Amino acid sequence: MSVTQTGEFGLIARITARLGAGPAAPFGPGDDAAVVVAPDGRVVATTDALVAGRHFRQDWTGPVDVGHRAAAANLADVAAMGAAPTALLVALCTPPDLPVAWVDGLADGLAAEAALVGVRVVGGDVSASPTLTVVVTALGDLAGAAPVTRAGARPGDTVAMAGRVGHAAAGLTVLSRGFRSPKLLVDAYRRPQVPYAAGPEAAVLGATAMIDVSDGLVADVGHLATASRVAVDLRRDAFPMPGPLRNAAEALGVDPYDWILAGGDDHPLVATFPDGTLLPEHWQVVGEVREGSGVTVDGKPHLGPPGWDHLRGT
Amino acid sequence: MSVTQTGEFGLIARITARLGAGPAAPFGPGDDAAVVVAPDGRVVATTDALVAGRHFRQDWTGPVDVGHRAAAANLADVAAMGAAPTALLVALCTPPDLPVAWVDGLADGLAAEAALVGVRVVGGDVSASPTLTVVVTALGDLAGAAPVTRAGARPGDTVAMAGRVGHAAAGLTVLSRGFRSPKLLVDAYRRPQVPYAAGPEAAVLGATAMIDVSDGLVADVGHLATASRVAVDLRRDAFPMPGPLRNAAEALGVDPYDWILAGGDDHPLVATFPDGTLLPEHWQVVGEVREGSGVTVDGKPHLGPPGWDHLRGT
Repeated sequence: MSVTQTGEFGLIARITARLGAGPAAPFGPGDDAAVVVAPDGRVVATTDALVAGRHFRQDWTGPVDVGHRAAAANLADVAAMGAAPTALLVALCTPPDLPVAWVDGLADGLAAEAALVGVRVVGGDVSASPTLTVVVTALGDLAGAAPVTRAGARPGDTVAMAGRVGHAAAGLTVLSRGFRSPKLLVDAYRRPQVPYAAGPEAAVLGATAMIDVSDGLVADVGHLATASRVAVDLRRDAFPMPGPLRNAAEALGVDPYDWILAGGDDHPLVATFPDGTLLPEHWQVVGEVREGSGVTVDGKPHLGPPGWDHLRGT
Repeated sequence: MSVTQTGEFGLIARITARLGAGPAAPFGPGDDAAVVVAPDGRVVATTDALVAGRHFRQDWTGPVDVGHRAAAANLADVAAMGAAPTALLVALCTPPDLPVAWVDGLADGLAAEAALVGVRVVGGDVSASPTLTVVVTALGDLAGAAPVTRAGARPGDTVAMAGRVGHAAAGLTVLSRGFRSPKLLVDAYRRPQVPYAAGPEAAVLGATAMIDVSDGLVADVGHLATASRVAVDLRRDAFPMPGPLRNAAEALGVDPYDWILAGGDDHPLVATFPDGTLLPEHWQVVGEVREGSGVTVDGKPHLGPPGWDHLRGT
């Protein structure tokens, strides 16, 4: 059965049923707009699109995975402000012949990723389009803390990272060469493991700046450096190089540091902290903030690809 | 110059510059997420997509108009909850060869429509896609009032409408027959005139239910009736029939009530009020709530097209 056979309102009813209902959003889905709690008196908001053929290939990424990834990309942006997510909204643009089962899977993936942080999809929109597109909006609450922007890093600060990096990029390379394993890497590409709780934690620990790495470590840390008007030096050997990553790189003839320094989609959080801040173990020190501009690796310019430009595709 | 030549970050910088900056969103655009005021402690949130070739034709609707329409569709949903808009976010999915000037126009239209209600675009995302798609998210504040949902209408309530209806549908018919006038109707299709302030006003006046008419009057009032478990009877002669509408209908051989009863895109607000509520002049009484289910016109079933299904295209 295709979405055209279900029709707009049939499809919305079907999605809504799968998403379940709860106390977080007493008026959504099903009304003109959702009403979401914002106890802090401010709301954090971000929106990100996943386009079939650009951000995912339907033969590599099933609908449940697309749901996980679309939710994760946005929830990570909320965490990177130091906020806790409160709700998701989703706009689905779908070809007329898309199987309804695909939409079921998408709803399940969105709901499952949202459930990891205790929130739900509270509203959305479905439209016909020749290009399958999933646009998620995430909202979040700061719980009284100041938002942690990209702009507060100061020379002398420690640069630390929570979460994995390079795994998703390695998984994408594995898939693009026609392989389906190692599973650790392919799964990392399909479903990022985002350290959501580390975002508000960093705010409490006194982070001076923070960013979600979605386009590539050097590129995204570069955005933080630019916004803060500082330089950042990263230490190559500070990044863990697990066996499967090293082995896959060897087998595929790839420098694994290209995955680590330029790969996106794992959504680790990178934050800067005043020197001497006592950091929990899951915040790994990976570099330091210096006077100047730009990002260096072990004091030298990074010569590999910096990251992803969503319009140029490089 | 195309968006590919500008690149993702060049295009974002260009859009951001056009959108201006202001106190409403101190941290957006330009960070992982925006921070928006939510003084009420709750936030109203809604998202809607406009897809080229589905919701607009680039030869009929210029980029500034697409910006107005994309903003209006979402701001109207916020108003229909009884809330005042606080911010917009926009996700733009663009073909690589789209002229940058088109994006400039879109940003101008979004900013101009947002300015009508004193808000701004505070964040967003740009992605490449074969299909030009604009997905807007609107946020709003209830200022202490209870949200006006679709579900509170009671038998005996008065049904009233603020704003125009049928004009945009007439404009679309005019354009689809190859004409460019009457200007009033074509302009109504290109840029809806949404009675934003009437939304929070209805909440203060004690509205029991409210909806934004975007897919067609009978269809959307039908959603309100279903959610409230009531019937609604509309009075045909209660709807104003201005000269240009009547004349265009005659010239094109169309029943103008098809435009009024089934046309979308004008975004009037329809609300139900306890019988006897003193309504300002811009709230026009158009019917009443009865026991039962469904929507009738002058007591009889409406036999014309009810409205728009975004997946079936009818």
